[in-house]
Amino acid sequence: MGNTFGHLFRITTYGESHGGGVGVVIDGCPPLVEISEAEIQVELDRRRPGQSKITTPRKETDTCEILSGVFEGKTTGTPISILVRNKDARSQDYSEMVQTYRPSHADATYDAKYGIRNWQGGGRSSARETIGRVAAGAIAKKILHIVNHVEVIGYVKKIQDIEATVDPDAVTMEQVESNIVRCPDLTCADRMIDRIEAIGREGDSIGGVVECVVRNVPKGLGVPVFDRLEADIAKGVMSLPATKGFEIGSGFAGTLMTGSEHNDEFYTDEDGEIRTRTNRSGGTQGGISNGENIIIRVAFKPTATIRKEQNTVTQDGEETTLAAKGRHDPCVLPRAVPMVEAMVALVLCDHLLRYYGQCKVV
Amino acid sequence: MGNTFGHLFRITTYGESHGGGVGVVIDGCPPLVEISEAEIQVELDRRRPGQSKITTPRKETDTCEILSGVFEGKTTGTPISILVRNKDARSQDYSEMVQTYRPSHADATYDAKYGIRNWQGGGRSSARETIGRVAAGAIAKKILHIVNHVEVIGYVKKIQDIEATVDPDAVTMEQVESNIVRCPDLTCADRMIDRIEAIGREGDSIGGVVECVVRNVPKGLGVPVFDRLEADIAKGVMSLPATKGFEIGSGFAGTLMTGSEHNDEFYTDEDGEIRTRTNRSGGTQGGISNGENIIIRVAFKPTATIRKEQNTVTQDGEETTLAAKGRHDPCVLPRAVPMVEAMVALVLCDHLLRYYGQCKVV
Amino acid sequence: MGNTFGHLFRITTYGESHGGGVGVVIDGCPPLVEISEAEIQVELDRRRPGQSKITTPRKETDTCEILSGVFEGKTTGTPISILVRNKDARSQDYSEMVQTYRPSHADATYDAKYGIRNWQGGGRSSARETIGRVAAGAIAKKILHIVNHVEVIGYVKKIQDIEATVDPDAVTMEQVESNIVRCPDLTCADRMIDRIEAIGREGDSIGGVVECVVRNVPKGLGVPVFDRLEADIAKGVMSLPATKGFEIGSGFAGTLMTGSEHNDEFYTDEDGEIRTRTNRSGGTQGGISNGENIIIRVAFKPTATIRKEQNTVTQDGEETTLAAKGRHDPCVLPRAVPMVEAMVALVLCDHLLRYYGQCKVV
Amino acid sequence: MGNTFGHLFRITTYGESHGGGVGVVIDGCPPLVEISEAEIQVELDRRRPGQSKITTPRKETDTCEILSGVFEGKTTGTPISILVRNKDARSQDYSEMVQTYRPSHADATYDAKYGIRNWQGGGRSSARETIGRVAAGAIAKKILHIVNHVEVIGYVKKIQDIEATVDPDAVTMEQVESNIVRCPDLTCADRMIDRIEAIGREGDSIGGVVECVVRNVPKGLGVPVFDRLEADIAKGVMSLPATKGFEIGSGFAGTLMTGSEHNDEFYTDEDGEIRTRTNRSGGTQGGISNGENIIIRVAFKPTATIRKEQNTVTQDGEETTLAAKGRHDPCVLPRAVPMVEAMVALVLCDHLLRYYGQCKVV
Repeated sequence: MGNTFGHLFRITTYGESHGGGVGVVIDGCPPLVEISEAEIQVELDRRRPGQSKITTPRKETDTCEILSGVFEGKTTGTPISILVRNKDARSQDYSEMVQTYRPSHADATYDAKYGIRNWQGGGRSSARETIGRVAAGAIAKKILHIVNHVEVIGYVKKIQDIEATVDPDAVTMEQVESNIVRCPDLTCADRMIDRIEAIGREGDSIGGVVECVVRNVPKGLGVPVFDRLEADIAKGVMSLPATKGFEIGSGFAGTLMTGSEHNDEFYTDEDGEIRTRTNRSGGTQGGISNGENIIIRVAFKPTATIRKEQNTVTQDGEETTLAAKGRHDPCVLPRAVPMVEAMVALVLCDHLLRYYGQCKVV
Repeated sequence: MGNTFGHLFRITTYGESHGGGVGVVIDGCPPLVEISEAEIQVELDRRRPGQSKITTPRKETDTCEILSGVFEGKTTGTPISILVRNKDARSQDYSEMVQTYRPSHADATYDAKYGIRNWQGGGRSSARETIGRVAAGAIAKKILHIVNHVEVIGYVKKIQDIEATVDPDAVTMEQVESNIVRCPDLTCADRMIDRIEAIGREGDSIGGVVECVVRNVPKGLGVPVFDRLEADIAKGVMSLPATKGFEIGSGFAGTLMTGSEHNDEFYTDEDGEIRTRTNRSGGTQGGISNGENIIIRVAFKPTATIRKEQNTVTQDGEETTLAAKGRHDPCVLPRAVPMVEAMVALVLCDHLLRYYGQCKVV
Repeated sequence: MGNTFGHLFRITTYGESHGGGVGVVIDGCPPLVEISEAEIQVELDRRRPGQSKITTPRKETDTCEILSGVFEGKTTGTPISILVRNKDARSQDYSEMVQTYRPSHADATYDAKYGIRNWQGGGRSSARETIGRVAAGAIAKKILHIVNHVEVIGYVKKIQDIEATVDPDAVTMEQVESNIVRCPDLTCADRMIDRIEAIGREGDSIGGVVECVVRNVPKGLGVPVFDRLEADIAKGVMSLPATKGFEIGSGFAGTLMTGSEHNDEFYTDEDGEIRTRTNRSGGTQGGISNGENIIIRVAFKPTATIRKEQNTVTQDGEETTLAAKGRHDPCVLPRAVPMVEAMVALVLCDHLLRYYGQCKVV
Repeated sequence: MGNTFGHLFRITTYGESHGGGVGVVIDGCPPLVEISEAEIQVELDRRRPGQSKITTPRKETDTCEILSGVFEGKTTGTPISILVRNKDARSQDYSEMVQTYRPSHADATYDAKYGIRNWQGGGRSSARETIGRVAAGAIAKKILHIVNHVEVIGYVKKIQDIEATVDPDAVTMEQVESNIVRCPDLTCADRMIDRIEAIGREGDSIGGVVECVVRNVPKGLGVPVFDRLEADIAKGVMSLPATKGFEIGSGFAGTLMTGSEHNDEFYTDEDGEIRTRTNRSGGTQGGISNGENIIIRVAFKPTATIRKEQNTVTQDGEETTLAAKGRHDPCVLPRAVPMVEAMVALVLCDHLLRYYGQCKVV
């Protein structure tokens, strides 16, 4: 195990960068959900390489095929298998990586653990593995939307030190998708794009922060004490490649405040609903959603594979240098946005089913 | 489910702040590990209230009893049940909390989810719940020590804006335990203690950051793609009460660097071991331990329960104010150190068993 | 792991025959279920030794204590911990078993697996371990009753070759409990009691078959393809000590029929409900409950521990003989009835929650 | 969930009778196991329809493709995805089943549970679903063979009342495969084949019993108290379509013996190994393998789908009759043999990994 995520809405992914294909099996999906390959493709296209001048120029169309679990356009409650064939296998680009370990990449640890490694394009540790997550996330989003008009919206909050100003309560998917870096603050977006292009030209890379908001969350999701909603979300996003940190609500900045400043005071709104005036909690209290917007942030390190020459060793421990060829993203953030959304949506959908049951939720 | 953590080294906790007691069942513990109640008690005493002038003055001795799974001083491979009876139940301190929701506490969300709540002392959402985790963590630490002399050392890195200087490669448990705030930087420790005392006198609270280092980690722990070591650690620590953020290695600060600055270059040491010169990765690459020290940080918010008056509502939605009575920690950090260590140790021990099997590891 | 059963209504048991005690933690219990120690005790008393002249004369009152998860007489949705202290520890009765392996008992395999064994009274492999199951089963039964008036009724169907005539559609708990062997066919019951007493006098033992019926089962429980209702029930009952076989509906006898004889024809009853005229399926089709009564049977072997002398070996492999002292059941069947009921109830309750969710079922 | 089986060696199956295909993802497979599509195909060919005159004449070649997890002929420790495309879709044969429920089939219960059903060819409840199990079982068998020369051999023990004489300690795969009914008792085999042909001509069906032996089992597999080896095997085989009963060792017949007759006396063999003289236990004691051969039996009911006319109802509850068209097996037993072997092998492989760890077993 290790490639399955979730308890009731449960996904299992498979596949390496090269080989037959990558995909996902979704087990526990509620029946009677209308879903099409086209809807899933929309999310995959947000993730795929070659979508803009600031992503890797590799051309992968990543066309998905639903193999099972959908009948006459509706889910049947049985496992949904989605396959994306691999293409465009320029595995010669990776030939130097057969022997040489890329710094801060998973080559050495896979060898240490398994004693074998599919060295083509990073194998299982390639970001290509996230295709299955994003495909499953598309279905999770659909279910969340049907049940309570739940919206999951991610965006680039920071590229290096360039920080966007975004109102998580108001941001729209249209704003996110209005530019290639997926930053709804358009002034910042331009600066981010310039920065990424510049660093790419140098053969180097940069990282940043994705923020993700979930709106219209039903109260009561999350199961103490270990399956707190934020704990499951933390696990989900920290299982994405290149992540180094996670925050919910006030996050690390909240540690600078006093309790009287940080606490979210309760009030009763015009509909008689108990609400909080502020949202430093980030949408959960005691690990259970409180109906306020869930707001999380994820730190992504600069892409490990760079064209600049670095010191490293071979599989046999001999010291050497490496300047990666291939076609790599100078910054993963724009493509990471749908990945973060997917993981957040999967966690919420799983907890929705734990609360309402598989067959009674939709 | 929700109260079970881990796959092969698996703990299930139970218990509320008031009632018969709190405890843990540890399933999957390797056989033939020497363990005593006294060893577990050492860790529980680091966690218990009333241990110093900067923690709550509640007197809870938290004496543990091993009910099963240990025979003639050794584990038998069967479930280990550890019970700590509840005492000192001044539940009248909480009488106002029957009706009134404490801001940023779990009262309202438990009511929303379950329609019922043990309102005495926070019930299941009380930090008292962590006793079972710390007791199990004591055994996990012991196993880690036996297998590879693995050390898990946590300490207070920051209280509000007071940041300690600590060398994670060299810090010792003795240094951590040399002062009541558990900060190995003694100059900082004094300032932290003063700050906590001052805020406590005001009836307010503060938060901070716990850092935890794991040394002598075997290579190869962690299972991609979802059960990456850092993902499981993130889930573990984010399931602790009052946590708002998690980092591994460079964390959020790593997003400011370029790839060429951030990457950890490989070299071969005098023993022929492949190592990295820097450790911005924080001990894992691709979700698998690389043999370098694991370094993580956890943000704890200021304690939610404060004596200062705050606006809130009752269960029925009527607006009111609350100034908590009871005896609360002005800062959870000193007592959070063993909790973080426990969760980190539990994850590592679980992955150790996934790598080596339950019965062959010790 | 290995001591946890169920997915959403999930129990973890612990404890050996001797030592602090045995118990169970129930995780995922729906909130707001009224439950008392007295109700649980009723089931424990049906299981306990010394209840009649045909069970072991060991006196164990098996008094249970609820440690958590119940507040003011109602479940809170948090883990319910139930503890039964061990008493009457005549461990000297087992002194010969320190070295000598009882034939067809678990002494040798526990040693082979774990390299250590709590040899007092069978340790973890003692039937005493089932206390936790029966206690949890009492709560599962209560929930099933509340949700749909579901009844789970077990009884002794066969002792050796003495086979009772019982109508599973009509049998009542009163009939089962009207005699000490728990067989509702009173003529057979007398013969069974005589047989058990006779074999006990010889220092030997016998086995038999427990049948269990579940009535008023909601349609739709069970999750193909692996978590079919009958597969989960099979696992549950085959995890009881001394079981050798499992059947649902027609069972092995069904293999003698043709399809046209065996198939259950459908009809529509006066309420417009689709029903089957016969019930060779035993209440499930395709692994999902069809609303008909679930009928299963479990084979229990003769008690392994007997007073008659047998050939065996010591821990070191030296050949020897053993004539067990201690006080053992000549036949486990009467006490096995509540164990089978408990496992069946636990599986049904788990699937109820998978269908309806934890918090929405009651 | 419901479509995942196993803990460390874990399979997830998907797919319906019609649609894109059926398949399996195997997670947790040890690395460095040599495996080819051809080896898997051997087992699939034992399962496929149209293999002889006593199986359905449907032509399905069931050609498998490994999509991931195998690199240069060896497993890599990452998920192995195996796909078999669907072909030969004569879905018009099933057109009457859109509305009409086949007696003792899963049509009605799927509708009751999910409110929707892929009615083509039985959809998910088709025996075609077992392709993924058998493919995964082929790999499990290979691992078992590598680790300890473990052999898993199933065969037809009974067809209706025709019972074969087979020595489980000596039977070979060659004997099993020497005839189309997979019964190593050749005299019986002929009678069984005649019986199946005769019943098929009548448009009716029959059932029987598959026996399966596992030889060279390492001691120590199985985890009390719930994940006993026989409990996990019971769940595995009872999750196969058309199963009605399970036995291990003496099974139901063992209930007729006394303890002194039934117990397996220990002795020490010439190699100093502790063994049992008889094997009524069937290879496990206390849920843990004792090194003797594991022997289990599974009852399969007569095929539900028959050409003879039966009374039934439509989806709307209207009474009607049904005489199935299509091409169905008059007896599933010959094709069930590899299915039983697969489930048994999967359980053993899972417990092997729980004992030795994923990466250290091979």
